[in-house]
Amino acid sequence: MRATATALLVLLAVVPGVARAESGRAAWLRYQPVDAPVRAQYAAWHAPVRPLHDSPALQAAANELTRAIASLLATSGGGGPDDPPLRPPVTGGPQGAAAPRVAAGIVLGSLDEVRRAIRGATPPAALPPDAYWISTTSRPIAIAAANDRGVLYGVFAVLDRIARQQPLPTTWQDAPAAPVRWVNEWNNLDGTIERGYAGRSIFFEGGHVADDLTRAGEYARLLASIGINGCTINNVNANAEVLTDRFIPQLVRVADVFRPWGVALSIAIDFSSPMKIGGLDTFDPLDPRVAAFWKARVDAIYQAIPDFGGFVLKADSEGRLGPSAYGRTHADAANVIATALAPHHGLLFYRGFVYNNHMDYRDLKNDRARAAVDNFKPLDGQFLPNVILQIKYGPIDFQVREPASPLFAALTSTNQAIELQITQEYLGQQRHVVYTPPMWKEVLDFDMRVNGAATPVRTLVTGKTFNRPTGGFVGVSNVGRDENWLANDLSVANLYGFGRLAWNPEASPRTIAEDWTGLTFGRNAKIVSTITSLLLDSWPAYERYTGNLGIGTLTDILGVHYGPGIESSERNGWGQWHRADGLGVGMDRTSATGTGFTAQYPPAVAAQFESLSTTPDELLLFFHHVPYTYRLKNGKTVIQHIYDEHYLGAEQAAGFVSRWTTLEGSIDRDRYAAVLKHLEYQAGHAIVWRDAIVSWFRWISATPDAHGRAGHFPGRVEVETMTLDGFTSTAVTPWETASGALAAACRSGRTCTATSTFAGDPGPSDVAVAYFDESDGASRFRLLVNGRTIDTWTADGDVPSPTPNGHTATRHTTRNVMLQPGDAIRIEVDADRNESGAVDYLEITPATAADGSSRPR
Amino acid sequence: MRATATALLVLLAVVPGVARAESGRAAWLRYQPVDAPVRAQYAAWHAPVRPLHDSPALQAAANELTRAIASLLATSGGGGPDDPPLRPPVTGGPQGAAAPRVAAGIVLGSLDEVRRAIRGATPPAALPPDAYWISTTSRPIAIAAANDRGVLYGVFAVLDRIARQQPLPTTWQDAPAAPVRWVNEWNNLDGTIERGYAGRSIFFEGGHVADDLTRAGEYARLLASIGINGCTINNVNANAEVLTDRFIPQLVRVADVFRPWGVALSIAIDFSSPMKIGGLDTFDPLDPRVAAFWKARVDAIYQAIPDFGGFVLKADSEGRLGPSAYGRTHADAANVIATALAPHHGLLFYRGFVYNNHMDYRDLKNDRARAAVDNFKPLDGQFLPNVILQIKYGPIDFQVREPASPLFAALTSTNQAIELQITQEYLGQQRHVVYTPPMWKEVLDFDMRVNGAATPVRTLVTGKTFNRPTGGFVGVSNVGRDENWLANDLSVANLYGFGRLAWNPEASPRTIAEDWTGLTFGRNAKIVSTITSLLLDSWPAYERYTGNLGIGTLTDILGVHYGPGIESSERNGWGQWHRADGLGVGMDRTSATGTGFTAQYPPAVAAQFESLSTTPDELLLFFHHVPYTYRLKNGKTVIQHIYDEHYLGAEQAAGFVSRWTTLEGSIDRDRYAAVLKHLEYQAGHAIVWRDAIVSWFRWISATPDAHGRAGHFPGRVEVETMTLDGFTSTAVTPWETASGALAAACRSGRTCTATSTFAGDPGPSDVAVAYFDESDGASRFRLLVNGRTIDTWTADGDVPSPTPNGHTATRHTTRNVMLQPGDAIRIEVDADRNESGAVDYLEITPATAADGSSRPR
Repeated sequence: MRATATALLVLLAVVPGVARAESGRAAWLRYQPVDAPVRAQYAAWHAPVRPLHDSPALQAAANELTRAIASLLATSGGGGPDDPPLRPPVTGGPQGAAAPRVAAGIVLGSLDEVRRAIRGATPPAALPPDAYWISTTSRPIAIAAANDRGVLYGVFAVLDRIARQQPLPTTWQDAPAAPVRWVNEWNNLDGTIERGYAGRSIFFEGGHVADDLTRAGEYARLLASIGINGCTINNVNANAEVLTDRFIPQLVRVADVFRPWGVALSIAIDFSSPMKIGGLDTFDPLDPRVAAFWKARVDAIYQAIPDFGGFVLKADSEGRLGPSAYGRTHADAANVIATALAPHHGLLFYRGFVYNNHMDYRDLKNDRARAAVDNFKPLDGQFLPNVILQIKYGPIDFQVREPASPLFAALTSTNQAIELQITQEYLGQQRHVVYTPPMWKEVLDFDMRVNGAATPVRTLVTGKTFNRPTGGFVGVSNVGRDENWLANDLSVANLYGFGRLAWNPEASPRTIAEDWTGLTFGRNAKIVSTITSLLLDSWPAYERYTGNLGIGTLTDILGVHYGPGIESSERNGWGQWHRADGLGVGMDRTSATGTGFTAQYPPAVAAQFESLSTTPDELLLFFHHVPYTYRLKNGKTVIQHIYDEHYLGAEQAAGFVSRWTTLEGSIDRDRYAAVLKHLEYQAGHAIVWRDAIVSWFRWISATPDAHGRAGHFPGRVEVETMTLDGFTSTAVTPWETASGALAAACRSGRTCTATSTFAGDPGPSDVAVAYFDESDGASRFRLLVNGRTIDTWTADGDVPSPTPNGHTATRHTTRNVMLQPGDAIRIEVDADRNESGAVDYLEITPATAADGSSRPR
Repeated sequence: MRATATALLVLLAVVPGVARAESGRAAWLRYQPVDAPVRAQYAAWHAPVRPLHDSPALQAAANELTRAIASLLATSGGGGPDDPPLRPPVTGGPQGAAAPRVAAGIVLGSLDEVRRAIRGATPPAALPPDAYWISTTSRPIAIAAANDRGVLYGVFAVLDRIARQQPLPTTWQDAPAAPVRWVNEWNNLDGTIERGYAGRSIFFEGGHVADDLTRAGEYARLLASIGINGCTINNVNANAEVLTDRFIPQLVRVADVFRPWGVALSIAIDFSSPMKIGGLDTFDPLDPRVAAFWKARVDAIYQAIPDFGGFVLKADSEGRLGPSAYGRTHADAANVIATALAPHHGLLFYRGFVYNNHMDYRDLKNDRARAAVDNFKPLDGQFLPNVILQIKYGPIDFQVREPASPLFAALTSTNQAIELQITQEYLGQQRHVVYTPPMWKEVLDFDMRVNGAATPVRTLVTGKTFNRPTGGFVGVSNVGRDENWLANDLSVANLYGFGRLAWNPEASPRTIAEDWTGLTFGRNAKIVSTITSLLLDSWPAYERYTGNLGIGTLTDILGVHYGPGIESSERNGWGQWHRADGLGVGMDRTSATGTGFTAQYPPAVAAQFESLSTTPDELLLFFHHVPYTYRLKNGKTVIQHIYDEHYLGAEQAAGFVSRWTTLEGSIDRDRYAAVLKHLEYQAGHAIVWRDAIVSWFRWISATPDAHGRAGHFPGRVEVETMTLDGFTSTAVTPWETASGALAAACRSGRTCTATSTFAGDPGPSDVAVAYFDESDGASRFRLLVNGRTIDTWTADGDVPSPTPNGHTATRHTTRNVMLQPGDAIRIEVDADRNESGAVDYLEITPATAADGSSRPR
């Protein structure tokens, strides 16, 4: 472990301190020097650190504290992760019971050790696991906890306060809301990541654990800093191989880099392992040979990794084998493995995401939302005490808006954990900025009214409501090898926010955003307010332009879950249906006339959702099928609301660009530019979303937009109607993802041109080119006016689709072009490899100033 | 020429006379022996035949007459095309003016020759070209005409009457309605045929004219027998190569096999030929070098083929280059070539099928239907006298129902020909039986009310209305190397019917069907009435299940134009739109509120179509956009009519099978079986059509079927919900072409099984398996009950699509299977090559008897 910790420090040290370039790799642990006026109040922390016993976590805590304080209290040039300053030594010498009382510096240890080490110290008699107690005025300063992990968290708590320049109380203590604060990483052994958007795995490559686990260690440190205490490193769609004797030594290496940071290693397992790798002809959980298999595998793992965390199991779901193969229950399945884990204090997370993915959409009583309660409520009380049911926050699948899963309230005698998703699967995949803590917070605060009493989801999942022995939070994180962990610097706020809410689900998403921004980009008030407001507006904006009123994210749910694909959420076997037809839209989930899903909630909540009049607008279409003419509580018809929200959402996304540009010069150049590029892309793709959904609903509802926007695009010229050379007109599927349903496609290896004569008003103009950036090439685009090239760009984005569609549709805007009527506007494309080089339209509008207003022209 | 005519006879002779097997290659020229009681009245025709001058056509006429009479009047075993009997010799000797008067036998010659050859003969002083005069009681018998072709037609007229056992008048004469009776063959030089469904080209292979032109000669004979006098052998999307010196000698060979049958050879040309093959840098029709190019090419052709017919030109249409490249008119384009043709009496057919295929569907004023009149009416009077505007019968493109093109009435000073389609491009591609003469007849009889007087289209296209020098009929035939010319024996009736209507557009489609049936399958009254009634019901049935009320054939109009693909007729640049949305359907083409297309008709017709109340139901949606709730003249709502018609059409298609099976044993076994297979396929595909269109409109209209059929399928089990091994559930595109939008797909090289337990009533059952017969493999299917194989079949159809969709969707029915509740029904597929082996559903219904009634059970 020491080797790894040292490796981390070396790595941080070797990054040259040039030009303040930041890669985002330090995330929120940048330890920027505090301002001179407040530095003095933290001076006592610039002192030798003494761990009161020897353990990897205490050693890591001591090193972290020492190094971070040096950086935070640095007085000159240095500071920041890129330039580690002089650091006070970690003091060695006798430790444990034999350690002498000390009178200066900082000590780290157990409650007993600290009580012994400091005269007059009054730490609490006991603390729950992972909680800490800090005494800042005693000499020595002390950080104490019931376990090493608690000390580590205490260190990070101190550093957080100093980094945010907050005063330190004389003593303070804190405890997490629940014992389980885990992340899942859906990494495949080949190094790919299911629903991962930030590069390849930091854990695996080529079918085995990666040789270089530097990033895995760094990641564990990030997790520790926000109180995450477990990490499942492989895909829940698990490869049985991970349980083999060949593989366990590889897991040991991961556990070794996790251990200093108090992160328990866990793996996802394949329920058919007894057959796949165990040489048995069955995986029936009630077969004694199967039980023996699980016991042997678990014992072997704990022999190698005594602090191993446990398993995550996805069974009988989406093609995964499970107990149904033998007519057994989910409890049978969970318990056979939990029995093996129990002697080692290991946990078995059983995923509640079980549903029939061959459901007949034509049966209006069918409802995937019912699946969780239908499957698990009858088994309540049958699971062993070390089983945790891992339940997605909503009844469907990480949509942009769902009601809280009724299963949280339906289980009184089963441990549970809420599964939240940090990786933005349905939420823009980190190409869009969507700050998710406000969405999570709405679910955590949702009041289930169990037995008529206030019962927020957070008290259910933390086990408090029904006094469960364990429970908590699982975040699907899917970090990757991208330097900044999650591809988009702003998306890292979601990882940070998950940790903060898992520790304290009563924390405010605004406070979390402010804290994260200050740590990540700088404490300057303008930076903090600008980025915080952008983050807080991001989920509402995304919901507006992708799918509002509870209809779900109107994406291609059968494929990559990214761009618009409205009809994919219909007529599939997967149960994600919006039921839109010519008259109306929405799933009738009432008990009176629909699927009966509402009745799965406790009575007060069921009554609220059963009635149209008490269902909140934002969940209307989740619970009810209504005509397009239905009037919302805001007085608008459903169809007009759809139009209005999509236009507003796209406008907000455009505004994010303007807001971000006010930070130019305030934050480091590299991250400024990287985020700007993301936001500009997002603003373009938000228009793709807007136009797709508005076009589709305008068509099917046959209802015009009262504000005349739908179907009218000032300044837009369809490329397929321009004078084309090489291009051919091509139908795009789904049709609503191309303006006018058509694009002009070039051909592999060719250069194609489309020319049009400008007929608008003279003056400075913005020229947007809507095109398709496919994954199968990097075509070169040029924009020419009167034969002169005024802009060039390359379609080298990373959207995972090789065809023109809602995923690949994007826009490039060339700003402030002086145009006169009669000017020849030409788009040229060099189509690269298999990319079609398809172009959708040209849109020429009066140039906008940085503040979003039109320039005079 | 003689060599070829001999080759034909040899070929007919070598087919062994076993088992009366018939391939259909003789088509309607089977010359079955007449019945004994009537034989005597034709005895005088069993006599030597003397051509009164030497020419290829007269020689062919004499040979045909001699051979056919021998067959028709044979008294025993022989007869029929497969067993040529003894034939009387063609008498040689001096001919022409030097020929002596003869007193017996049959003479063939010009009007003057016959007048000289027969004492007292009184042929008319003159006849129009191609007309004939026949004297049956003179001795010798005489067939005379103004030209050789007329004599040939007279011979075929006699043979037709005898074959149909009709009495022969003492003398009779007949003349065609118009000089132009041509076919176009869209054959490519590589041997493929655009929109051809009966095998490869009989004219071309590998980029050149085929070595063996036997079939080309046989085809010319068939054409001659129905009065067709011209044939354009290559695709209108023409290869410029055909005009080169290299190619002309090859054309000579085709002309040589055509000449005996009076069929003028013609080719389709590429308007950019001056540039592509002429070495010029322009193809501007007003450039003198371009005019010189055309003159030189035309002269070279006529030098080699003096009786060459002329050219067909498709310009400025669907990507073909045309005069617009130089700002020239269609008249400029036609005239530069017509000028070169005029000295040789060659014709230039200029296709009127010119429209913008990059039309913005969102503009409700856009209308492809307007294109013909918009393009050509302004040019009326500007075309040279040997130019013929070739106009498709309707304003769109060979849809199952269109109004007659207004261009017929809009041109008063331009020659015109109506273009009809024998190849069933949008009409089931010969896999479905659709007898088209009734559809053509409706168009030919449509009264344009020019200047308020009766003006049926037939008088316009024959040039009678405006006294044009030429005009007539062009049929797009696209025969291929299939033995029976058009793949489906019943489709050959359309080729025959085209010839009959081109000769006499006042002929009755029923009479034509009766005549063709008698000649093709036998004079037996049951055969004639059964097949005639089936043919007459076929177009209405096809219209019912593919697209009624004038909406157009609701097929994949962007691709193969075959199976259902409703949304392809929308949002494309090609202008084929049905404008269906959630409230209503149809194109508003009125002048008051729509595209103004109605105003292109003469006032009385315009007024009829302008008004909802006077527009006939069958064209309602062509002219008007109406809500689904609009009531038709038949009292039904539009939506209910859509449902009802699709169910009725599919029932009719099922009835065709029952009707055909009543002929078992009455007609030859091979053609009986071949047609039965087509009809069974058609019955299944009619259900595919029905379900696709009904599902789609039920969805978008959100209106239930008053009769409860839509969406309810008794006995149907979706395969994706069965117990699957190897299969995976797959979404089908477009969704409406699979039941429940999903299918179960197998994988290349695998065997997959789907099992279900029968839960219906015990008794004899029909088990239909709906699956997808893709073009990329020939998967093997088995149906098993309780483990025993009860049926096997192979998906080896020829539908031109490699994916599961509306083209490849089909059904196989295993009849009269005894089933008990609890029986295990299993479908097994060996997926071959790239074929997915996809299966849609299983449908188990009480067994039907041959008469369509349910068996007791």
